[in-house]
Amino acid sequence: MRIDIITVLPELLRSPFEASILKRAIDKGLVEVHIHNLRDYSTLKHKNVDDYQFGGGAGMVMMIEPIDACISKLKAEREYDEIIYMTPDGDTLDQPMANRMSLLTNIIILCGHYKGVDQRVRDHFITKEISIGDFVLSGGELAAAVVSDAIIRLIPGVLSNETSALTDSFQDNLLAPPVYTRPAEYKGWKVPDVLLSGHAANIDKWREDKALEHTQNRRPDLLE
Amino acid sequence: MRIDIITVLPELLRSPFEASILKRAIDKGLVEVHIHNLRDYSTLKHKNVDDYQFGGGAGMVMMIEPIDACISKLKAEREYDEIIYMTPDGDTLDQPMANRMSLLTNIIILCGHYKGVDQRVRDHFITKEISIGDFVLSGGELAAAVVSDAIIRLIPGVLSNETSALTDSFQDNLLAPPVYTRPAEYKGWKVPDVLLSGHAANIDKWREDKALEHTQNRRPDLLE
Repeated sequence: MRIDIITVLPELLRSPFEASILKRAIDKGLVEVHIHNLRDYSTLKHKNVDDYQFGGGAGMVMMIEPIDACISKLKAEREYDEIIYMTPDGDTLDQPMANRMSLLTNIIILCGHYKGVDQRVRDHFITKEISIGDFVLSGGELAAAVVSDAIIRLIPGVLSNETSALTDSFQDNLLAPPVYTRPAEYKGWKVPDVLLSGHAANIDKWREDKALEHTQNRRPDLLE
Repeated sequence: MRIDIITVLPELLRSPFEASILKRAIDKGLVEVHIHNLRDYSTLKHKNVDDYQFGGGAGMVMMIEPIDACISKLKAEREYDEIIYMTPDGDTLDQPMANRMSLLTNIIILCGHYKGVDQRVRDHFITKEISIGDFVLSGGELAAAVVSDAIIRLIPGVLSNETSALTDSFQDNLLAPPVYTRPAEYKGWKVPDVLLSGHAANIDKWREDKALEHTQNRRPDLLE
């Protein structure tokens, strides 16, 4: 899989891809992540990529021309499955969407910033708009890192133990049951006996019950 | 406002706080962000902070002892409004939650990693569990950065133009209307005439209509 991220703040995206699972996935050659500085595609003297909005009002708008230049260059090099724009009014990311996207080959992610991009970019270049939730961030960069992380960890071979992803919350519409590790007692707080019993069937039953109970308490909507 | 983030991957959190609006907020003294490496609180020889889960199964669990040590040290130094755990089964972050949290003075954010933390941490130390959405990430670090960004940009004085945040999506249960900037025509694609008219009342009316239409099309649930 190849992910091209277009941003005005490439430095913000540096550390998320240089640590942990994402770095390992890149090092193993399971995914390529290319960060493109939108300013490199500006033809203006001061490398501006934004301008005042037509009609007035607070907040700058990202111009169509450098975005067109960057996307067109990438599209001339290879086929893309999706050209994604991160925006709070896009389709909300969820686990099924992450699962589907983990099967794609090449995607572009355009990070919105300031007041967003010129609407003509969305009308003519973007094939999918994604939000990570009903809240506003100072830019699309963290959202792009979140989408990349959610997708990349699902690519076979990325997680060291593949069953680990399959027992995550949301993969079966249930929240995960509680987990415990040593010590068995800490400040008088004990681990449930069943988990120490060594009785596999009882442990499975306990975990299923707890997952269901936890989901009923916290997210009954997932069970509908 | 002071945010203390506890993590096993401090290096992942470096660049989000060293760029853009978050860096500016920190430089202006409007917010302090302290990143704590959980390994510094391990009393084990190899600085381990995780162990196998009781009852068996894939995925490691973060141990209670170093988390207790870190949180207790911080709580001895000052009062905290909330001790937050980032987890996919927490309360989903939204703009009203971000608004409320932007008024707090001191918060701790504990980043989950691996299979999560020992349940006793959640039962005895955590006061609030937050999810950024119905998807799974390789750790809570990006989620903690997202929550921090959503909160910090709302602190008065952080955004250079305060009206900019008030016209964001979700602040009035409406998605933002389309925005345009120069050039007025690009490859035959024109900016709507009204935005070039200079007629403020018509522009306001057009934006209100478009925001409502856009919300009806994409997120009718916000209008209920």
